[in-house]
Amino acid sequence: MSKPSIPQGTRDFSPVEVRKRQFIFNTLRDIFELYGFQPLETPSMENLTTLTGKYGEEGDRLIFKILNNGLHEKKEDDKNRLNAEWDKILSKPYSSPVVTERALRYDLTIPFARYVVMHQNELAFPFRRYQMQPVWRADRPQKGRYREFWQCDADVVGSTSLINEAELLCIYQEAFRQLQIPVVIKINSRKLLAALAELCGMPEKMMDITIAMDKLDKIGWVGVAKELQERGISDDGIWQIEKVINVKGTNEEKLLAFADIMQHSATGMEGINELSKTLAYYKELAGDNLELGLNIDVDISLARGLNYYTGVIVEVVCNHPEVKMGSIGGGGRYDDLTGLFGLKGLSGVGVSFGIDRIYDVMDELKVFPEQIATGSQVMLVNFGGENESYALRLLQQLRAANIAAEIYPDSAKFDKQMKYANRRGFAYVMLPGDEERQKNMVSLKNFKTGEQKMVSLEECVGILKQPS
Amino acid sequence: MSKPSIPQGTRDFSPVEVRKRQFIFNTLRDIFELYGFQPLETPSMENLTTLTGKYGEEGDRLIFKILNNGLHEKKEDDKNRLNAEWDKILSKPYSSPVVTERALRYDLTIPFARYVVMHQNELAFPFRRYQMQPVWRADRPQKGRYREFWQCDADVVGSTSLINEAELLCIYQEAFRQLQIPVVIKINSRKLLAALAELCGMPEKMMDITIAMDKLDKIGWVGVAKELQERGISDDGIWQIEKVINVKGTNEEKLLAFADIMQHSATGMEGINELSKTLAYYKELAGDNLELGLNIDVDISLARGLNYYTGVIVEVVCNHPEVKMGSIGGGGRYDDLTGLFGLKGLSGVGVSFGIDRIYDVMDELKVFPEQIATGSQVMLVNFGGENESYALRLLQQLRAANIAAEIYPDSAKFDKQMKYANRRGFAYVMLPGDEERQKNMVSLKNFKTGEQKMVSLEECVGILKQPS
Repeated sequence: MSKPSIPQGTRDFSPVEVRKRQFIFNTLRDIFELYGFQPLETPSMENLTTLTGKYGEEGDRLIFKILNNGLHEKKEDDKNRLNAEWDKILSKPYSSPVVTERALRYDLTIPFARYVVMHQNELAFPFRRYQMQPVWRADRPQKGRYREFWQCDADVVGSTSLINEAELLCIYQEAFRQLQIPVVIKINSRKLLAALAELCGMPEKMMDITIAMDKLDKIGWVGVAKELQERGISDDGIWQIEKVINVKGTNEEKLLAFADIMQHSATGMEGINELSKTLAYYKELAGDNLELGLNIDVDISLARGLNYYTGVIVEVVCNHPEVKMGSIGGGGRYDDLTGLFGLKGLSGVGVSFGIDRIYDVMDELKVFPEQIATGSQVMLVNFGGENESYALRLLQQLRAANIAAEIYPDSAKFDKQMKYANRRGFAYVMLPGDEERQKNMVSLKNFKTGEQKMVSLEECVGILKQPS
Repeated sequence: MSKPSIPQGTRDFSPVEVRKRQFIFNTLRDIFELYGFQPLETPSMENLTTLTGKYGEEGDRLIFKILNNGLHEKKEDDKNRLNAEWDKILSKPYSSPVVTERALRYDLTIPFARYVVMHQNELAFPFRRYQMQPVWRADRPQKGRYREFWQCDADVVGSTSLINEAELLCIYQEAFRQLQIPVVIKINSRKLLAALAELCGMPEKMMDITIAMDKLDKIGWVGVAKELQERGISDDGIWQIEKVINVKGTNEEKLLAFADIMQHSATGMEGINELSKTLAYYKELAGDNLELGLNIDVDISLARGLNYYTGVIVEVVCNHPEVKMGSIGGGGRYDDLTGLFGLKGLSGVGVSFGIDRIYDVMDELKVFPEQIATGSQVMLVNFGGENESYALRLLQQLRAANIAAEIYPDSAKFDKQMKYANRRGFAYVMLPGDEERQKNMVSLKNFKTGEQKMVSLEECVGILKQPS
């Protein structure tokens, strides 16, 4: 028998890991609910036709496809057809409904758009939903990149109001405050990037300009300028871009400077107004907690998901000197996502949380609550016979007092039981022996301090209810 | 563009459905934690070799297999091999690692066994774990049967103590008490079924006898007797079985009667002793709540999962005159599950909750808490301009008081906003207009009673915090 293993790029989550992940999910869930977002869950499998063509050529290649069942039970005619389709699958990136008609969810956005279109007549718009589910991609696994990973999205569709953008900024602030991760929220507008391309006299080069600018952090301005040249931007254009990138100051000052540079671009002015208004709404919502807003940074080099974003875009990065980690969240305004499935003119805006990276950052910063790790607070040692009966009665009384507790199920040797207790990391063990039973008391041993004392069950419950 | 749809046998879960399902999951999770069980999550995909051959021929047929990626990028030599494997897939139930090497999880038991074997050196035994995750089966979809559905299992491995069986009975009792589903818990032992076959002088016919007896509820004794005859059981054997089935009385009386009938079968006596001891442990645990035990019923016709169970087996059925539903939970003792992956001699016992059926029963009995349905408690009407700013300030103060609230994001027509509020089913709407803003008050309208009054924000928070 070969040693069992799991597929590359997938993970088992141990008890401690599940509890830590649940802590993140619960924190986010509570905030989403507080902000009036509603939960949605879609199936792991979608029809392949729902997914193909939505994520670009590379995306299509990375979709996990499910083999149709019962292929060997097909009739001869059908098999000829299957063989023909199989040949096509081998010769080009091609999806055949007779070989595979279903695939695993690749993200949460397309299933959400599909859901909204299917249920457009039942839903009340604006529809605010959150969704926290795994997605699957046949990417090459590497550190921090998995083939099964979790996405966590919050979106509003059916409203163009910038209050939505501001509320999503509040959600980011509140979430990372509660998770104890110091962050900077970068904000930009797709419209400013479009205006920049106009300024260069090359509106069709927006993509090239953005890709180059996005590397500013990594390769500096000299590198970016070189890449812009290689991508065919004129010297005058490069000079315009340099002017914009060199703008410094508060968000208000930056937006004023951009307005000066982009005053002749209607698109640019629209983007600037939208950013101003979003920040103003944010201030009104933040109210007395204005200092919270100091970590929001207008950053014209922010590029992010050019495929469907059309307005304000945001990205969250961890702002801690000892943590090196890319973006841990991002999102933006998109128009017409549901248009892919035939429902036109529904604007939306959403944000996403990178659960795996958030987990890693929290682990590094050691900000998970300590009590998450263990589970049960106390183990009852099993001394067998009448003491076992006594212990079972105590056990249920502890649980009735809402104290997570367990008994060692066999009256094994004391050392064996203590070794188990030690490995599990209980805060306390309870020792219900002859003396305790006869006195109707319990002996409680604190595993950290080694201290042991005999108390009544009532006192014992009091001790166990204290935060350790 | 064709109308979007989802694959047969899968489901979208709407906000209300997700909340109700979360209610069930959270209830069970809290109970598992209270009993010292630890959470585990395994990947959706397993290596196909981990799953095949574990669920019988029918099971193998129903496993969803994932097509390997990048088939069209293979070299010519590899393609010849692929074609050969493809031919095999078309001609017999055959899994080819070059065409498909991964598959979707079929249940939670095999991945659990696989996990225990892989992590045997890190785990502290007895290992008590719970797991709540979806599984996938290519079964023909029908009412109440899905291709993606959730399982919820709690198991203890590495202990043969019957305290485990008793604790799992307590977990069932506590869970269905909290979920407000009246139940009967049927209990039996695989060993009694084996003894019955011995009694008939046909130990090899245990399977046949059990399958026939399992139909007692449906076809009555006459039908069962006929089927036993057809399955080759002798008249004397059938008479022995009739004697056992006709045993009536309390659990204690039944076990005494079985002991009388099976006194010459060592296996039978072992099974009877195990059942007695399990019930005795259960009583010690239940303590003052003895009446709870009245719904536990020793039922020798209970068959359940003969493939790997070896000791005590249980099944939970809803006991309500108006609810027709099969089993909503079940489980039992198994020996050597991890032996499948090379780790011998590890005994285990577990129970499972049928989440989908529990959901349906709770819906039918109308026992979901009412407040689950809506989410946000209150919507703020958006009157635009300065009133919008006022509303945004109020909004964050409500959220700071932990009241789920939202604002209509546009200053749309009043009727449109109220129509939205109505569809969403808010308990209250808040109307922050000119007068309210100038007086620094809020008008709160109760959607059920239609009553509207102007109060301070503080009073308003008080009202919204009352259970509606």
